[in-house]
Amino acid sequence: KNVAQTPNTIPRKVVVFDCRLENGDAIEKVLDIQGMEFSEFLRTVKKEFSISSKERFVLLTTDRREINVERFEELKDGNTLHLLQSIDQALSVSTKERIQFLPHYDTLIKSGMYEYYASEGQKSLPYAFAELIDNALSATSNNDGVRKIDIRLMFDESQGKPAVVVLDNGSGMTSKQLNNWAVYRLSKFTRESSEFESDHMGYVRPAPVPRSLNSDISYFGVGGKQAVFYIGQSTRMITKPAGAMDVHELLLSKEEFEKKEKNKEDIYKGFILNRMPGDSSHITHEDERFLHNLIAEEVAQDHFTAVVVTGVQPEHVAFLRADFHLWTRELAHVYHYYVHGIHGNDMRPSKDNTDTKGNIDIQISLFERLKVPRLVNVREISNDMQTLYINSSVDVFEFKAQVEEEGTVEGILRYHPFLYDKETYPEDPYAIPSLPQEDEEDCVIINQEGRGKKPIFECFWNGRLIPYTTVAEFDWCTWAKKSAPVPAECYNRISGALFTNDKFQVSTNKLTFMDLELRLKDKGTIFTRVVNGQEQRVKIHKEFTQWLKDCHEKWDKQIKFSGFKGSMTRTDV
Amino acid sequence: KNVAQTPNTIPRKVVVFDCRLENGDAIEKVLDIQGMEFSEFLRTVKKEFSISSKERFVLLTTDRREINVERFEELKDGNTLHLLQSIDQALSVSTKERIQFLPHYDTLIKSGMYEYYASEGQKSLPYAFAELIDNALSATSNNDGVRKIDIRLMFDESQGKPAVVVLDNGSGMTSKQLNNWAVYRLSKFTRESSEFESDHMGYVRPAPVPRSLNSDISYFGVGGKQAVFYIGQSTRMITKPAGAMDVHELLLSKEEFEKKEKNKEDIYKGFILNRMPGDSSHITHEDERFLHNLIAEEVAQDHFTAVVVTGVQPEHVAFLRADFHLWTRELAHVYHYYVHGIHGNDMRPSKDNTDTKGNIDIQISLFERLKVPRLVNVREISNDMQTLYINSSVDVFEFKAQVEEEGTVEGILRYHPFLYDKETYPEDPYAIPSLPQEDEEDCVIINQEGRGKKPIFECFWNGRLIPYTTVAEFDWCTWAKKSAPVPAECYNRISGALFTNDKFQVSTNKLTFMDLELRLKDKGTIFTRVVNGQEQRVKIHKEFTQWLKDCHEKWDKQIKFSGFKGSMTRTDV
Ligand SMILES: Nc1ncnc2c1ncn2[C@@H]1O[C@H](COP(=O)(O)OP(=O)(O)OP(=O)(O)O)[C@@H](O)[C@H]1O
Ligand SMILES: Nc1ncnc2c1ncn2[C@@H]1O[C@H](COP(=O)(O)OP(=O)(O)OP(=O)(O)O)[C@@H](O)[C@H]1O
Ligand SMILES: [Mg+2]
Ligand SMILES: [Mg+2]
Repeated sequence: KNVAQTPNTIPRKVVVFDCRLENGDAIEKVLDIQGMEFSEFLRTVKKEFSISSKERFVLLTTDRREINVERFEELKDGNTLHLLQSIDQALSVSTKERIQFLPHYDTLIKSGMYEYYASEGQKSLPYAFAELIDNALSATSNNDGVRKIDIRLMFDESQGKPAVVVLDNGSGMTSKQLNNWAVYRLSKFTRESSEFESDHMGYVRPAPVPRSLNSDISYFGVGGKQAVFYIGQSTRMITKPAGAMDVHELLLSKEEFEKKEKNKEDIYKGFILNRMPGDSSHITHEDERFLHNLIAEEVAQDHFTAVVVTGVQPEHVAFLRADFHLWTRELAHVYHYYVHGIHGNDMRPSKDNTDTKGNIDIQISLFERLKVPRLVNVREISNDMQTLYINSSVDVFEFKAQVEEEGTVEGILRYHPFLYDKETYPEDPYAIPSLPQEDEEDCVIINQEGRGKKPIFECFWNGRLIPYTTVAEFDWCTWAKKSAPVPAECYNRISGALFTNDKFQVSTNKLTFMDLELRLKDKGTIFTRVVNGQEQRVKIHKEFTQWLKDCHEKWDKQIKFSGFKGSMTRTDV
Repeated sequence: KNVAQTPNTIPRKVVVFDCRLENGDAIEKVLDIQGMEFSEFLRTVKKEFSISSKERFVLLTTDRREINVERFEELKDGNTLHLLQSIDQALSVSTKERIQFLPHYDTLIKSGMYEYYASEGQKSLPYAFAELIDNALSATSNNDGVRKIDIRLMFDESQGKPAVVVLDNGSGMTSKQLNNWAVYRLSKFTRESSEFESDHMGYVRPAPVPRSLNSDISYFGVGGKQAVFYIGQSTRMITKPAGAMDVHELLLSKEEFEKKEKNKEDIYKGFILNRMPGDSSHITHEDERFLHNLIAEEVAQDHFTAVVVTGVQPEHVAFLRADFHLWTRELAHVYHYYVHGIHGNDMRPSKDNTDTKGNIDIQISLFERLKVPRLVNVREISNDMQTLYINSSVDVFEFKAQVEEEGTVEGILRYHPFLYDKETYPEDPYAIPSLPQEDEEDCVIINQEGRGKKPIFECFWNGRLIPYTTVAEFDWCTWAKKSAPVPAECYNRISGALFTNDKFQVSTNKLTFMDLELRLKDKGTIFTRVVNGQEQRVKIHKEFTQWLKDCHEKWDKQIKFSGFKGSMTRTDV
């Protein structure tokens, strides 16, 4: 029915350069060899290049293979040939052979480097999920009401093969935007948002907000693709923009790419299905039965995006089931401030944070056959590290760092006092215990407790945690034997967080900062203290030291000296 | 002159789906709107879809924007339109909109992630060079005579803008292979090597060789591209296969990509220049003057590849000049065993290693205006860490690890004795000194000397160093307080190297192993000792401990106890 689109014959044209001349430009002709026999081709060449019947000539590939009857049959559309007097005639005139060098489809399906950061049992799968949450956060940033991000693990075999669904009630995508989604490395900084140039809006950088919680976390044009193909083998994007009548759907799959390669079809051509909301008549495969219900939900939702990943790697399925607590907690850590607002998850009864609570609902559910679904709202997770830091701290020291022109970093330090007989600096309940330090002969190790050798700062970029970058300390908050007004232990009672804006670079998988520490420690960086939201130009070192001293005097309920000095109880507090 | 190739008009066809029906399949027609006016287009639509003159209809984009005179002008080739009765008619029949999603060209020019591994003054530029050396090693692996890899830094302004040239006398590339070079993510495992299917040879895995020095270091189809665009902005590949008469040349540049995007030309189309060796008539730009000499060298060389990177980032130029010793030494480290053979760079007079010396010449030269060029042959660099380890060691312990079916790791441990008043375990002369450990009150730190806390093993993959992965130890070579027959210090006197075959995975930039340590420490891994090239199934822990004890007794010329016990001289050795 669409004759004009699919010609019944694949085009077959070759480019022939006449290189027989000793100088001048090679004459170039495009010859259509569709349906030709070799002898006819030779006649055509003779005619086109005015070769007399007595003249000797050869036709060679650009690798100097002579075209004979067999090779002629194998010539493909776009091949370039050299016309020469003999097989060893020098190429006195140069030729320009047209080539194409489309990236291989592995670019899309193998680019997720998450696995290279997984080590010693630490799993990077939650960080792939994070890419999809990032996209949902960006998409819901202009929502009026609640911003819903719904992660559903469809592991009920009676409903189909295992699938991961990430659903949000964000802006959705037009079919053009959905098309753009699939373009590897196309970022918001460079893309057109509409078919019509007149509609073009460039990227507008969001205004600064506290903790850089600006939801502006789409940066490189790779995250979603890397994530879905790290999680599984196939992805269906289903989306509908606000006010639109139609749903747009795009399926990308490894299998499809392989098939296209095998059939020598265009790898990067595909189609978007435009359809009515709720219409699941195209879902015919048993493996995807669960999609009928998902699609049925569309009619109740004005705008949404659903990312449906199938062909989930079995080891991922096993991990997601077995370590449900672990990875959901990790997501609570990554999005702590998005979910809880700028003050974080302060659960202490004295605090009234109702006004700063966010409107972001990240809901995770795991469906298994014949089991009660496991549901958790990320806001309710209360054992992620930031929650532990916040709730065990008694005092905070806020500061700001200005790096070069536009790099802004907000910082917070928290004091975890020594109470009666123990440090209150929280331990990661799931941390892999490091090798127990052998108590070496003749040596008493001080400062086993509190923070120990852990870096002080966790680092957030545009409000979300960059998990593999930490900053150990700054010179102004390091213990110095000579001048410290408080015992070294107090320096081990602080935890901290840094919040950078987008003027700091992160790796494309958002696992590491590029040069945060280097830039922060640059001489030009200016640190100011922040008190009640007001910046104060002060000697940060002095201010910090005073704060620490105050904390120590006010909050530490006992001072413990390790080693030979034993332990002594203060009577003055 | 090539009329058939460049039609004077860009095609402009749109696909119209008739979606007015309430059920059935949408009828699809491709309409050529080239040169049409809007009114004519409407007439055509009416006719093609048999719309009576009284019938109401609208033409919408798939985002439901109505096509009017203005929007009609902006329609592009390939756009899809919906024919509906009214703008709000539901889409009862679904449509398949054809799309294209070619990766953005940033895929090629921004994929080098080397910068994310640069931290605290450590520079990753040598590892970008390493990718080009890897390719040259692969290409020269079948050379009869010497394998020459020539790295030239053309920083003489009188010869043009700064350029980096990597030249090898390897197999060269046919024009098809050169075309393949440019295809991102096309690896040797998947590609066709010739235009003709009958020539197709699949990948043949090389037979095992000692230390896995198999030169088989081309793996992902990304290395060269990542490297050149990390180093500079533009790359010219010039190559000639053995016995061929013609040189093939391909230029890829950021500028060119930007231009093509701006002009809406095919991003991944380009051309290969086929020409006579020595013909530099196409080099017309002042910035590339130095190329005339380089091209003139072609006539004396039967087969070669030259990678010419221009638009070198100024900070790279500065680093390459200022830290010449540092980065050349790092390359000597990465390719230590390729350059020096399986026994490494043993310079001690007692050793006769002439037979195992490799035939690989990596020559580095830096040309600057009015200065004597700086030249170094990587073989002559004698302060790379492997050279230091080898020459300061007195004894070796060789072993092998078999991981699962096919993962093979050769290992070597070296003993660096304590001699009279100091440890001989070599220090990295260029290492950034870590913060001096404050000698804490009441605490004497033991084991400051020797290896200290450094991991034991450096790790080589197919014979070349993977710089950011180390393995700290195995349980059988770790000091255990209870059972150790020698003092803990002896365990700090060993260095080691691991040589894996290609059954271990590395990241695409070859900076880290994926899971070497995890797999090595798997219960199923079998360690055997190797003596004179013979594997021995023994208790590795017992063998190692005995070896260490022997080393200690035979080589340590003094035993030093730190801390309260002071120092004591053995009189029995
Ligand atoms: N849930 C979503 N809702 C709406 N638009 C989305 C959604 N997910 C992705 N997109 C669109 O697709 C684009 C591509 O997403 P992808 O995650 O691959 O890259 P990116 O977010 O642009 O950059 P990054 O590499 O930083 O993730 C996004 O920029 C956004 O425009
Ligand atoms: N110096 C060279 N001589 C001959 N062929 C080369 C040379 N450099 C590159 N090639 C060819 O180009 C291909 C692509 O090189 P590139 O370094 O980009 O990827 P790769 O080497 O295949 O994989 P990797 O990502 O591991 O480097 C190589 O596989 C090789 O066939
Ligand atoms: Mg994203
Ligand atoms: Mg390579």
